Amino acid sequence: MTVEDVKQARQAVEFSREKLESVLRGRFFYAPAFDLYGGVSGLYDYGPPGCSFQANVVDQWRKHFILEEDMLEVDCTMLTPYEVLKTSGHVDKFSDWMCRDLKTGEIFRADHLVEEVLEARLKGDQEARGLVKDANAEAEEDADKKKRKKKVKQIKAVKLEDDVVKEYQHILAQIDGYSGPELGEMMKKYNIGNPVTGEPLEPPMAFNLMFETAIGPSGQLKGYLRPETAQGQFLNFNKLLEFNNGKTPFASASIGKSFRNEISPRAGLLRVREFLMAEIEHFVDPLDKSHPKFHEVKDIKLSFLPRNIQQSGSTEPLVTTIGEAVASKMVDNETLGYFIARIYLFLIKIGVDDTKLRFRQHMANEMAHYAADCWDAELKTSFGWIECVGCADRSAYDLTVHANKTKEKLVVRQKLETPVEVTKYEIDLTKKLFGPKFRKDAPKVEAYLTELSQEELEKKAEELKTNGKIVFTVKGIEGEIELDDKFVVIEKRTKVEHVREFVPNVIEPSFGIGRIIYSIFEHSFWSRPEDTARAVLSFPPLVAPTKVLLVPLSNHKDLAPVTAQVSKILRKEQIAFRVDDSGVSIGKRYARNDELGTPFGITIDFDSVKDGSVTLRERDSTKQVRGSVEAVIKAVREITYNGASWEEGTKDLAPFVSQSDAE
Amino acid sequence: MTVEDVKQARQAVEFSREKLESVLRGRFFYAPAFDLYGGVSGLYDYGPPGCSFQANVVDQWRKHFILEEDMLEVDCTMLTPYEVLKTSGHVDKFSDWMCRDLKTGEIFRADHLVEEVLEARLKGDQEARGLVKDANAEAEEDADKKKRKKKVKQIKAVKLEDDVVKEYQHILAQIDGYSGPELGEMMKKYNIGNPVTGEPLEPPMAFNLMFETAIGPSGQLKGYLRPETAQGQFLNFNKLLEFNNGKTPFASASIGKSFRNEISPRAGLLRVREFLMAEIEHFVDPLDKSHPKFHEVKDIKLSFLPRNIQQSGSTEPLVTTIGEAVASKMVDNETLGYFIARIYLFLIKIGVDDTKLRFRQHMANEMAHYAADCWDAELKTSFGWIECVGCADRSAYDLTVHANKTKEKLVVRQKLETPVEVTKYEIDLTKKLFGPKFRKDAPKVEAYLTELSQEELEKKAEELKTNGKIVFTVKGIEGEIELDDKFVVIEKRTKVEHVREFVPNVIEPSFGIGRIIYSIFEHSFWSRPEDTARAVLSFPPLVAPTKVLLVPLSNHKDLAPVTAQVSKILRKEQIAFRVDDSGVSIGKRYARNDELGTPFGITIDFDSVKDGSVTLRERDSTKQVRGSVEAVIKAVREITYNGASWEEGTKDLAPFVSQSDAE
Repeated sequence: MTVEDVKQARQAVEFSREKLESVLRGRFFYAPAFDLYGGVSGLYDYGPPGCSFQANVVDQWRKHFILEEDMLEVDCTMLTPYEVLKTSGHVDKFSDWMCRDLKTGEIFRADHLVEEVLEARLKGDQEARGLVKDANAEAEEDADKKKRKKKVKQIKAVKLEDDVVKEYQHILAQIDGYSGPELGEMMKKYNIGNPVTGEPLEPPMAFNLMFETAIGPSGQLKGYLRPETAQGQFLNFNKLLEFNNGKTPFASASIGKSFRNEISPRAGLLRVREFLMAEIEHFVDPLDKSHPKFHEVKDIKLSFLPRNIQQSGSTEPLVTTIGEAVASKMVDNETLGYFIARIYLFLIKIGVDDTKLRFRQHMANEMAHYAADCWDAELKTSFGWIECVGCADRSAYDLTVHANKTKEKLVVRQKLETPVEVTKYEIDLTKKLFGPKFRKDAPKVEAYLTELSQEELEKKAEELKTNGKIVFTVKGIEGEIELDDKFVVIEKRTKVEHVREFVPNVIEPSFGIGRIIYSIFEHSFWSRPEDTARAVLSFPPLVAPTKVLLVPLSNHKDLAPVTAQVSKILRKEQIAFRVDDSGVSIGKRYARNDELGTPFGITIDFDSVKDGSVTLRERDSTKQVRGSVEAVIKAVREITYNGASWEEGTKDLAPFVSQSDAE
Repeated sequence: MTVEDVKQARQAVEFSREKLESVLRGRFFYAPAFDLYGGVSGLYDYGPPGCSFQANVVDQWRKHFILEEDMLEVDCTMLTPYEVLKTSGHVDKFSDWMCRDLKTGEIFRADHLVEEVLEARLKGDQEARGLVKDANAEAEEDADKKKRKKKVKQIKAVKLEDDVVKEYQHILAQIDGYSGPELGEMMKKYNIGNPVTGEPLEPPMAFNLMFETAIGPSGQLKGYLRPETAQGQFLNFNKLLEFNNGKTPFASASIGKSFRNEISPRAGLLRVREFLMAEIEHFVDPLDKSHPKFHEVKDIKLSFLPRNIQQSGSTEPLVTTIGEAVASKMVDNETLGYFIARIYLFLIKIGVDDTKLRFRQHMANEMAHYAADCWDAELKTSFGWIECVGCADRSAYDLTVHANKTKEKLVVRQKLETPVEVTKYEIDLTKKLFGPKFRKDAPKVEAYLTELSQEELEKKAEELKTNGKIVFTVKGIEGEIELDDKFVVIEKRTKVEHVREFVPNVIEPSFGIGRIIYSIFEHSFWSRPEDTARAVLSFPPLVAPTKVLLVPLSNHKDLAPVTAQVSKILRKEQIAFRVDDSGVSIGKRYARNDELGTPFGITIDFDSVKDGSVTLRERDSTKQVRGSVEAVIKAVREITYNGASWEEGTKDLAPFVSQSDAE
């Protein structure tokens, strides 16, 4: 089988998600957590091959991003006090809308409910018009694609007015953009209730997606499990900047679990309540977002789905180089572009199919509350296009809100080569007069005055000049306050500044490792055309859970010493391997191992005992070659770690013909 | 400086914890989490060097244990439903005792409170007797050693009766063994209240140390953050056994965060609320706990503190080989012994000082609720001996309780080479009669009967034979139940069994990674005798956060290409390095880097531009050698990854004399 043959064979049998899931669970790549206790939806455990695959992906991530770019890795706590997430906006805005049925206790996610009921009515209409044969079967398929339960159990063939159809279609086209109250209005207007009983539901309530807990024995320090790793990085900004000798740009990075209390996740690795994230926060001067290594990636061609294409209703991507994309301003700046290209290179390296990868720009109304712009790397799976990596420009949002809240500066100080003259209004307070006049309110009044903007100061300066006093009110203090020029001086002053102070902007590539892993499972999975029961997971050797299957031909004791010798060398070279000395046939053992995605098999037979030679088998092509133990292991190393192709890696080994795969 | 000189230098200046902590925080090895918001006690973030050190320790752990022993690594969820931890015993038993002061709202950990109050009174007595000068200062020191706040603010010099002194001493000797009610009794008897106000406290209440949360939107599925990674491994036992082709012994392993809501943790990495654990569950036949690789470790000498030495009041360890320890039954079996030795080898490899390491056996009353025997690897620090690795025999406890609760078998089935005859009582139910007679209670009655023990079956068989019926009651069903021999047959039968079924025992080595890391910080820290302001962290190169500091002599542009060239090679070889091109003197840059524990410095000067040679500096001895870039990097690789000594690794390089360290 040539490389071309393998490519064809991989396309020959239609992909079946059911078959993939059966292999993944059967080989314990993953399993529902607490299975023994009936399971908890949205929680999964990784078994040995899944865990090892995950560890290899994380290891490659660390090398590709952290080591390559000298990023500063941190490991911050998951438990996060209320105050931090209140400031970041998550307490108020990180929620979905849910509706309760007070009679049955059922809980629905409001946007999904409206979407599914309207879709079901449209399907019923189509059946009534004779355009669809079985509306229920179609709805079942749609629900499955979205990994949800079909909520509307029985669709009735009822024809709708033409303008109602149009209204429904209009709503569905922008279903992601509605607020809770808007969804509630629609539910009233279109009489949307419990899809089974038809009974009305409570109006949509915001359900915060963070898991809440109490820190310490008093129960009074409210905390959450973090919804992202980013906040820990922002809070440590000053320490990171100091560690980096005060210089920007620089990036921090973090790999760790985050949590989202999804309203009703259905089985599957794509929507889970506890998940591994890898996040980079690249801190950059807002006035200079160029990147010194952009030229290294500028010629890489990518598929883009920018806002304007989406608005036109098309999903046909624009294929162009990242250099062009930045030059044309479709992608805002070099740093954002550099990371988009690096994300692409990483995903390809670990096994993503590049024909199933696109970069989609967020529409204005779907961005997270902190984002100024965002491109998602989306991977195509049987569930549709899935957001797997976000690459957001969070601007100065997070550093600013934390600095405002804590009154600690989170800024970069840059020595200016040529000092600049700056003219601005300044206010001086005669503090010793404030205490006697305002008593306990003095700090509030002082804070109010020192936080006035340039614009406000200009007005107050005018007022002070004209009236000899300023009049204002301060929140929390009753009545008007008057101060004359004994208390305050407001002046326009010109100063020479030697240091520029700025809040850096943040470019954030954020990876959902579990979603990437599941997508690679789909992209790697195929069935052998000659025997469709034989499934293969064609992982790149670099990230395959195990690199080598060691197969003694039989359990005969003469073979044991060779097996032990090869094991010892593989262990010393730290090449992950497993011995399969179960009694079943070689063919069956290879078949089992193809399902585990192990790229190489080393077979030990009676000739091995005589001349020390062993057979090396390649998973995808089932090709075999033969040579000394050392030569075979060298080939494995070259192909796995040094990027050699099978042909290059095995050029010194002899071809070998066996019937083992035909058994 | 020879190796011997370095050894002496490391001992010359007395250890100062304050100095170590100042270096660790100053260089951002770690920092209190949410510092900007005032911090939360018991929560810490690792900065870049701490995070990298941790990643290297975990990487070595994976290689030393998982890869070496073909362990099955799993990654299970942290969120855990109530039911699982109820069954495992954690809901009922994983708690400390706390006392509240209802007036002030203060909360005290009961055992610590009693301990400190009694100790303070004994100190006061000693001062009154003229045996101690300043009881308050001594108590301050003690509290610091235990990482607690000194609760008794003012110790009064009050003489106690001699028999009261004896009573107090007796209680203190076994303070870890009292229950909450016992502590409550003592507080009443000895009038122990709030140590500042003297007011009485609420009686001790059990405070569960698990963080509680609700899973899903209904708020009705109660869950906890896991207190250990072990439960996930036990729950997946059947899948793991199948993955291992049904064979035992085998081990699973897991690396991940666990959580304990400590009552009042004081600053420091030793008692934290969120921590990284690495746990192994080795499943073994209870009838055969031998280990095939025990002979490889049997001659390793270790320091043991078995139960009998502790009971005698001594802390003088017994130094002997692990082979002897197992042969004499001090350590129960080969598997436990094998892991103890492997733990030792691991700790030494990553930088633990072997004169500060001992294995202490748990006393019967201090073991966790699930443990049958336990040895702790304890590391000596300025806080005393700290438990860093537990090596427990959990027997069949966990698998048994989960199997009983879920009615799922968690057993190994072993084909017997020679079938055995087994005689036992069996009960047959005529199930078709149960439904009509018991209706909805039928399953309860059937379950009651099929779960009778052999002993109970023997009695019931006798009863049936004698009376023609059996009479019994079932929990949840009113009244007595009578069944005759139409409903049940109970007989003693002899069968030939070809399969042996058993619940494996579990040997569990459990590593607290954070505690190990902090201990290594202490073991590695010293100050240069010639300039005590210059601190060094002498990490083994293998786990050092960064391996190489790259130091261009100046910022002159001619040096930049050589720096770039060396960087490129180091990056390609995946040797972690940092460039320090800050303007400060070479000496200052080396000093900063010694604090970061970086083992090697590569200096680039103007000769480098001419002949391509660079200087290699060793951190501890400050020795320097010179050679080509390739030769120097080869030396770094040999010493860091292949275990070569400095002398072996640099034998082909020329000695080099410089003043840089004297600057």
